[in-house]
Amino acid sequence: MRWTVSNPFSFRLVAGDGAARAGEMMTAHGAVHTPTFMPVGTQAAVKGVHHDDVRAAGTEILLANTYHLMLRPSAERIARLGGLHAFMRWPHPILTDSGGFQVMSLAPLREITEEGVTFRSHIDGATVELTPERAIEVQILLGSDIAMQLDECVKLPAERDDIERAVKLSLRWAERCKRAFEGAALDRALFGIVQGGDDHKLRAESARAITDLGFDGYAIGGLAVGETQAVMLEVVTETAAALSAEQPRYLMGVGTPADLLEAIARGIDMFDCVLPTRNGRHGLAFTRFGAINIKNARHADDPQPLDADSRCPGARDFSRAYLHHLFRSNEALGGTLLSLINLYYYQDLMAGAREAILAHRFGDYVEQTKEQWTAKRDMSPS
Amino acid sequence: MRWTVSNPFSFRLVAGDGAARAGEMMTAHGAVHTPTFMPVGTQAAVKGVHHDDVRAAGTEILLANTYHLMLRPSAERIARLGGLHAFMRWPHPILTDSGGFQVMSLAPLREITEEGVTFRSHIDGATVELTPERAIEVQILLGSDIAMQLDECVKLPAERDDIERAVKLSLRWAERCKRAFEGAALDRALFGIVQGGDDHKLRAESARAITDLGFDGYAIGGLAVGETQAVMLEVVTETAAALSAEQPRYLMGVGTPADLLEAIARGIDMFDCVLPTRNGRHGLAFTRFGAINIKNARHADDPQPLDADSRCPGARDFSRAYLHHLFRSNEALGGTLLSLINLYYYQDLMAGAREAILAHRFGDYVEQTKEQWTAKRDMSPS
Repeated sequence: MRWTVSNPFSFRLVAGDGAARAGEMMTAHGAVHTPTFMPVGTQAAVKGVHHDDVRAAGTEILLANTYHLMLRPSAERIARLGGLHAFMRWPHPILTDSGGFQVMSLAPLREITEEGVTFRSHIDGATVELTPERAIEVQILLGSDIAMQLDECVKLPAERDDIERAVKLSLRWAERCKRAFEGAALDRALFGIVQGGDDHKLRAESARAITDLGFDGYAIGGLAVGETQAVMLEVVTETAAALSAEQPRYLMGVGTPADLLEAIARGIDMFDCVLPTRNGRHGLAFTRFGAINIKNARHADDPQPLDADSRCPGARDFSRAYLHHLFRSNEALGGTLLSLINLYYYQDLMAGAREAILAHRFGDYVEQTKEQWTAKRDMSPS
Repeated sequence: MRWTVSNPFSFRLVAGDGAARAGEMMTAHGAVHTPTFMPVGTQAAVKGVHHDDVRAAGTEILLANTYHLMLRPSAERIARLGGLHAFMRWPHPILTDSGGFQVMSLAPLREITEEGVTFRSHIDGATVELTPERAIEVQILLGSDIAMQLDECVKLPAERDDIERAVKLSLRWAERCKRAFEGAALDRALFGIVQGGDDHKLRAESARAITDLGFDGYAIGGLAVGETQAVMLEVVTETAAALSAEQPRYLMGVGTPADLLEAIARGIDMFDCVLPTRNGRHGLAFTRFGAINIKNARHADDPQPLDADSRCPGARDFSRAYLHHLFRSNEALGGTLLSLINLYYYQDLMAGAREAILAHRFGDYVEQTKEQWTAKRDMSPS
């Protein structure tokens, strides 16, 4: 663990309720209250939504994708322009992933060796090499508050041998990332990643080895990649319990509102996911009353808003009929409004979870929230 | 002219400077200061921009397209939902066109008869009839503050006979529109439209006949449809002079910032155009320093904003490099930001014109504005 007086990164637990935790993370760009949800600003922008609105929704920390940014406009260009915070004008905390996940899922002709991963850029076909050292260099150039180690994420279902090989490679890469990061001697945080697929023994080994190496926080990677929610939650339960209680735990790429509540109940502090914005662009709204497909014909004449009591102006002020019309007419404003409505919902869900943990009533909060999702309500226009 | 005590529509001239005029229009949904620019909310939304931002840009009145809205979601549905102001939550003035222009330019299989125009919907292929009476009915259902007569707009260049036929048909339709509108006895405004292509004699005849019929305001239609700016301005000069000095004059579908200044100098009070948003979506920014194509490679490393002194946050706060990146990366936020930057620019240009007219220095304003568009400036990063 890197604890120096100059390091502005810290995490402290404020309250616990069962395995659920409320905490506070300090970074050079401000505080983050956990549990926290990080909207995904893939290419230095949250798709379809202005940063000011992302912030107004209650976002304290944003995730940006190293893979996309290193290819375009390039980490060096962003560094010349003052780093990612200045480039995109997001003066609040930013976490960057290592680029590894997108290399595995997006880049053509990728080849993984001990040294790192070589791939063709999906933009111009250029051959690019991403080693653990380069992944750290890129994230330092971007200036992220929390950097992630390079790892190999295996798609499930997978053979145990493949998972084991990836776990061991990720561990050796973790060590190299840590060395490269410490060499830079910057006051930022580096998180290690636990891999191991759906194999509990491998997860336990990975968790032990990664915590032995020592990082500022720990992520659980390689989930939400094709397995069921039950499998995912089992892995989360065991892995979270195996991680240091004093440091933040981050479940990567997860998930639905239900996933978030279940994972918080198991001791997770941080999440990121494209669901609120991706589903928003496709007309699916997350609300206190469950998910609503606004493109459904039954909304065409409905003067009711999505949620009259929402903190989000779009959910509160526009009728379902109008939102429906925007999607039917392919007006981009529809996707923008629903993306934002979903971000507000996610952030309010997290704020509610935190409050409930502080009040030691998290179990009730989960139960009541889920009940409201499925409760039958009179949907007819009033 | 419909002047009744219950009619909240009025127009008064506040100042004149040469042929240029500053005025104030009152509608049931508030005041409009002229000269004024109306952003186009084609399908009850300004493409890519939230209404709140359209308003913040300085917009006092919006244009909505009757053709699009009558086909989807339908005027009857919008009326059931409280009218267009309530449906889209724009509580400020709205002008609707008659639908005629889009029928002529968008609808397949259109057939024009004395009765009206029959066409196939471009959405579902249904046969739709738009008569002068129906055009008024639809606009009354929408609840627009200013309705437009149905007219036939001829694409230029055209034969004199075709233009003359369209002028005479439009005049008979004007009379029917006026009758239908008065029959409804609503406290809104109806504008007549002068046609006549680039034929000065036909324009003069059309202007005389339309003003004899008597409307709340007069539009010049059938321009910016293929002719040069010189031809357009000649027609504007003569037509504006032939119209009643006490009523608003609206130049439909125009235009570039230069077009606007030239037309104001000739006595035009109102404009609408898709240019600020359409060009914005394609990466072209209108600024005090002229038009800037943000996709140009020279902006990739430029930390300067588009205009550090702009009232528009997007023009002032984001670097050209970041805006360039958004367009290169196909992030919708780029189009949204540039559309809004352009709307701010258009509205500031109009506000500046009005101020200059009030101060009797409109000629200087035009000269200085044009000078700044073309002045060489040091574009290198400071």
